[in-house]
Amino acid sequence: MKVVKFGGSSVASATQIQKVGGIIKSDPERKIVVVSAPGKRNNNDIKITDMLIDLGHAYLQNKTYKDYLDKIMKRFEEIIQELNIPLSVLEDIEHSINNVLSRNLSDEIKFDAIKALGEDSSAKIVSEYLKHIGLEANYINPKDAGIMVSNELGEARILSESFSNLYALRERSDILVIPGFFGYTKEGNLATFPRGGSDITGSIVAAGVKAALYENFTDVDSVFSVNPNIVDNPKEITKLTYKEMRELSYAGFSVFHDEALIPAFNEKIPVAIKNTNNPQSPGTKIVAEKESLENCVVGIASDTGFSSIYISKYLMNRELGFGRKLFSILEDEMISFEHAPSGIDDMSIIIRDDQLTPEKEPIILKRIKEELQADTVSIHRDLAIIMVVGEGMNSTIGIAQKATSALKEANVNIEMINQGSSEVSMMFGIQAEGIDRAIQSLYDAYFGK
Amino acid sequence: MKVVKFGGSSVASATQIQKVGGIIKSDPERKIVVVSAPGKRNNNDIKITDMLIDLGHAYLQNKTYKDYLDKIMKRFEEIIQELNIPLSVLEDIEHSINNVLSRNLSDEIKFDAIKALGEDSSAKIVSEYLKHIGLEANYINPKDAGIMVSNELGEARILSESFSNLYALRERSDILVIPGFFGYTKEGNLATFPRGGSDITGSIVAAGVKAALYENFTDVDSVFSVNPNIVDNPKEITKLTYKEMRELSYAGFSVFHDEALIPAFNEKIPVAIKNTNNPQSPGTKIVAEKESLENCVVGIASDTGFSSIYISKYLMNRELGFGRKLFSILEDEMISFEHAPSGIDDMSIIIRDDQLTPEKEPIILKRIKEELQADTVSIHRDLAIIMVVGEGMNSTIGIAQKATSALKEANVNIEMINQGSSEVSMMFGIQAEGIDRAIQSLYDAYFGK
Repeated sequence: MKVVKFGGSSVASATQIQKVGGIIKSDPERKIVVVSAPGKRNNNDIKITDMLIDLGHAYLQNKTYKDYLDKIMKRFEEIIQELNIPLSVLEDIEHSINNVLSRNLSDEIKFDAIKALGEDSSAKIVSEYLKHIGLEANYINPKDAGIMVSNELGEARILSESFSNLYALRERSDILVIPGFFGYTKEGNLATFPRGGSDITGSIVAAGVKAALYENFTDVDSVFSVNPNIVDNPKEITKLTYKEMRELSYAGFSVFHDEALIPAFNEKIPVAIKNTNNPQSPGTKIVAEKESLENCVVGIASDTGFSSIYISKYLMNRELGFGRKLFSILEDEMISFEHAPSGIDDMSIIIRDDQLTPEKEPIILKRIKEELQADTVSIHRDLAIIMVVGEGMNSTIGIAQKATSALKEANVNIEMINQGSSEVSMMFGIQAEGIDRAIQSLYDAYFGK
Repeated sequence: MKVVKFGGSSVASATQIQKVGGIIKSDPERKIVVVSAPGKRNNNDIKITDMLIDLGHAYLQNKTYKDYLDKIMKRFEEIIQELNIPLSVLEDIEHSINNVLSRNLSDEIKFDAIKALGEDSSAKIVSEYLKHIGLEANYINPKDAGIMVSNELGEARILSESFSNLYALRERSDILVIPGFFGYTKEGNLATFPRGGSDITGSIVAAGVKAALYENFTDVDSVFSVNPNIVDNPKEITKLTYKEMRELSYAGFSVFHDEALIPAFNEKIPVAIKNTNNPQSPGTKIVAEKESLENCVVGIASDTGFSSIYISKYLMNRELGFGRKLFSILEDEMISFEHAPSGIDDMSIIIRDDQLTPEKEPIILKRIKEELQADTVSIHRDLAIIMVVGEGMNSTIGIAQKATSALKEANVNIEMINQGSSEVSMMFGIQAEGIDRAIQSLYDAYFGK
């Protein structure tokens, strides 16, 4: 059986939901459907969830919220009318909203419950539409599905008993439509996952029912091998591993909220990224392991906005505890760092720029200089990080040569190379100004012009 | 003024000491001479210091030590007779030895004092010989020179007051000959530096008198740019910086005991490595800073005997404190590591093989796997480390490309690259079996065939 998740743009309008229906109908293995709240229909549109958040704020501040509620209901009404499904769904949605607003709940719990109404309503509409096109389908509330979560509102984590609860859903012969984004605490309160949490629900359900495939439908055909804003018409990735996806998502790839994949990863459930608007396209498959490691570079990711703190001290590597003292200073100053490559007598701390505020910078430099008696402490700004990603690259002769040659050809100086810590990627640090020509040149080297 | 230090082979025989005399006489700036104990005259010879250690052991175990003493005295006698200097020097040496043996000292203190007799006697002989060839020269004991050290016998560290004591020696018009290897504690006891400690004395004296140059005479013309056991007739290095020397010495270059240089480094005293047997050769100069950073690669060092522990865990980089927990396990198990490059979801710990005993290996793997719940923990053995060293390389486009191309040409897979942590070097990790062809190919790339 397959678990199929549809993102906000896939359920944003009646036309989109009709596509969803077609997709479900075309494959009887698609037994469980997880849906987001209706997203934007165009660039100027507002997501239902954002409207619900406005409504929630207004409600909790005792301001009038009727305008928000009207807009939300109007949007649902349009969808329902266009889909030609019973208006009772709209009544059901309105009833649920009013029920949440009128219940005696703490502000925090109520706010979280309001936020989740978009997904809940979306699931009701989709299940009704599936019935409408002749499928045996039913809405199922996450509570009834057994999705139990921790008490952290807006940051809920799945509780392990959920997985065995969900496994029982395999017995059902009908198609189940589950709203994404939330679960229920042991006390019976609704609690939402972090934003983007419908991906989390999909992944949890796929893991729970031990799905043969977790299909994640969005509005792109597949994952690109490189940022299409830098390289024209880049190659699509047809298959990549979890690890590769992780390395790519670190530096600028944002197809997926990568933590969302943990439950699926733990059960080694393959994931397919597909396009609701072009379901025939093969999409991108994320798997636990690849059979072949040929053509091993799958993608090149990049991100700007990094700095490095360079520290040198003669005989540093003989000084016991130098690293630990340095990390304590960083921890004291609440700096979390990305990497800390060390030379013999020097160390660089790679951090994201936002970690190093103008107030913190002089304090940190002073503390390192004085407390560690460093010979040199300096900050290098405007770094960009490039990740060349592919399992198997660490055993392929000449992979590094290809990258360094491409960067030389692009006239880009390499400030930093980190290979070998990861078996899946090679990291380069360069000056941010050279990023576009570096990426283009690397792309040409690995994927051909 | 110059401080000149002569190693064991430079004072191993009368012929060698005559060369030392010629070197001192040729330059009136050479005002302070530091000497080692007589070393080996040929491969089958025994160093005086090793004989003294045997004598010390025998003496302290109440065994007969007369044979050792006879051999030592015979060696000194030969030198003195050949140099044609007064036999009173020999009497003086014998008197000093008997004095140390008969004094009421603890075993540890006595042993340290015995070990130092080689340098002490050597200084007496050399000063007498300098007088003999018409120079105004005098032996000066480290106590009188003001070399004060900590109480750690055999591991003594210099006390800071020594430097101002030594500065007073600038007033002396005569040439001073100081035995290397030892100083005196505040209690007045002799204490030796770690082995190779005559280099330390030389460096301390050069720093104390603020010498214009610290000349270190050994039996090689200069430092080679690469291991001459791997590459035939490699280029000599004429000038390198302290930092470059440090990076080279890390991986197999053993010209110098690098800690010895700290005092000279602190005072930015330039150091010259020269050959007693070929003093006309320009030698190698070690300086604080280079004027030009052209042809920036100065040398390529390599060493085998490394292993890496590879640890991967999905979402490692989001896990607060992962690194710290890992380092605590290593600390618990008394593993000191060289580098710990980190990827997104993985980390490699590079260690010298001797750190990872067969007993420790399974314990460490188990602890990392269980306590950190790592997905993978594995050990990769037989790694070799290559350091390509040169200040300025981090701002030279194409330096990495040259290295990676050379390694590809040598058909060597790069397991690990670490560049950017150090502004002075680029580190490569490869399988040890490929080290010779890797080094030859890198040498050809940077220094031409």
